[in-house]
Amino acid sequence: MASATTEASATIEPVSGATADDLLSQLARAVRALEEEGPVPAVGLGIPGIIERRDGCARGVPNLPAIEGLPVGAALEARCGRRAFAANDANAAALAESWLGAGRDVESLLLVTLGTGVGGGLVFDGALFTGLAGYAGEVGHIQVEPNGVRCGCDSWGCIETIAGNGGWVRRAEEALAKRPSVLTGRALDPKSIVDAAGQGDAVALEVLDGTARALGAGIAAVLNLLNLERVVIGGGVAAAGPILLDRIVAATKQRTFPAVFGGCSFRPAALGSDAGVVGAARVAQIGLRAGAPA
Amino acid sequence: MASATTEASATIEPVSGATADDLLSQLARAVRALEEEGPVPAVGLGIPGIIERRDGCARGVPNLPAIEGLPVGAALEARCGRRAFAANDANAAALAESWLGAGRDVESLLLVTLGTGVGGGLVFDGALFTGLAGYAGEVGHIQVEPNGVRCGCDSWGCIETIAGNGGWVRRAEEALAKRPSVLTGRALDPKSIVDAAGQGDAVALEVLDGTARALGAGIAAVLNLLNLERVVIGGGVAAAGPILLDRIVAATKQRTFPAVFGGCSFRPAALGSDAGVVGAARVAQIGLRAGAPA
Repeated sequence: MASATTEASATIEPVSGATADDLLSQLARAVRALEEEGPVPAVGLGIPGIIERRDGCARGVPNLPAIEGLPVGAALEARCGRRAFAANDANAAALAESWLGAGRDVESLLLVTLGTGVGGGLVFDGALFTGLAGYAGEVGHIQVEPNGVRCGCDSWGCIETIAGNGGWVRRAEEALAKRPSVLTGRALDPKSIVDAAGQGDAVALEVLDGTARALGAGIAAVLNLLNLERVVIGGGVAAAGPILLDRIVAATKQRTFPAVFGGCSFRPAALGSDAGVVGAARVAQIGLRAGAPA
Repeated sequence: MASATTEASATIEPVSGATADDLLSQLARAVRALEEEGPVPAVGLGIPGIIERRDGCARGVPNLPAIEGLPVGAALEARCGRRAFAANDANAAALAESWLGAGRDVESLLLVTLGTGVGGGLVFDGALFTGLAGYAGEVGHIQVEPNGVRCGCDSWGCIETIAGNGGWVRRAEEALAKRPSVLTGRALDPKSIVDAAGQGDAVALEVLDGTARALGAGIAAVLNLLNLERVVIGGGVAAAGPILLDRIVAATKQRTFPAVFGGCSFRPAALGSDAGVVGAARVAQIGLRAGAPA
């Protein structure tokens, strides 16, 4: 969980078993520490879950169950006496890339973040699009394999089952069961697979192509639906560079209306692991200006 | 091509080989005829193609090539001396359902129209979402069959290849080649297939289930991405009622986050074939109020 003022930031690592009260105290202490560096007009919080639009409560926070159902912005505000605003961390990252990162020159973008899961966020006209209740942006749960494997979301064949870390490893294991490769006997993860692909390993290239196909199909669906100006690819493995990004772009192009594809450009994320906290600061800045409730 | 004032409407049937000048003259005459019924503050046009957001020009109008590249709103305005605004007809229909139809009680919706093609439109906060250049809303070109048949859009496995009229017929022919049914020897179209399904015919039910699966996968992708409040199903075959709609809803539910599905309701379109012209009137009304260029 990260909190940021518009000028400074702090990241707290919740201790195991921490209660909501413990976490709010930790956050309030972090805010006081930041105040020693300068005035804190407002606080932005990025959380690994949804912020329900209607009540500002956190939902779907399996990694931080203590805040499930808590109106985190309002609760922190009550604790530290500063305006406080919370947002989903992937949404916050999308807003950050739009504000200061790989989408600062465009008005609309889709961020796709690759990691354990495949997350994302949508920015239209410089503002986050969060949907009716705050759940928008879940590009990772577009179904791209009608006969695919079960997903953690209880659907199946979602992009995340293929392009999430576990999907890379499962597909590499399946391919290695059929033929040897430089990956045989190595610890498998997206980075080792991309490295092997860079050496021309056929199994690794097959896995990479599968990742690109799944992401390309999903991104094409988003582009045909929304006619966006920019797609930003983030997350650890996005640092792999053109060997992955070029394949994603090619797979997207095959499935997108030419006029829509022609209006869209693709970039790797620019803000790395800072994106969530920078976006949280932006959420706070926008919230403060709008005089919105936390 | 239909033109509407905010109070009255006219539909013109372009004669084969009509030039842009012919069409504009026909439209201007239709506007003058409407003026005999009362004042015409503005004119809205629904066209079977895209209106490019940047220049207001019509693009992708294979059924009305004379207006390809023409700034239809501005051109009609010059001809008839009234403010004139043009919009894609599927987008206009979505706006109409949001304004006066099956979505008048909600703020955001997806319209899916079933016919020769599978079209659609998106309304957020009561306004059309048309994307960067005007191409948004193409729900029919979400890929749902990675090994599916080639689509008119040059991609493959799009929803339209399955749930467009040709997709129903192709799948029925394939099924009938394997086993007889009450459909054997009958003229095949979505209506005859739905009628046979209503009689419990196994082949027809299989075709219906395939349609619902394709639409459910695509609608689920849209809902997980956008967390919308309403899905409206329109087009001729939507009149089939629950036998189709219930299957689409069930297939969507299987693939959508429970909290997102729970926030969304499904309705058949309410405005029928009037939706395009009603939406064009709304486009004109909004354009006139905003003082926007045509």
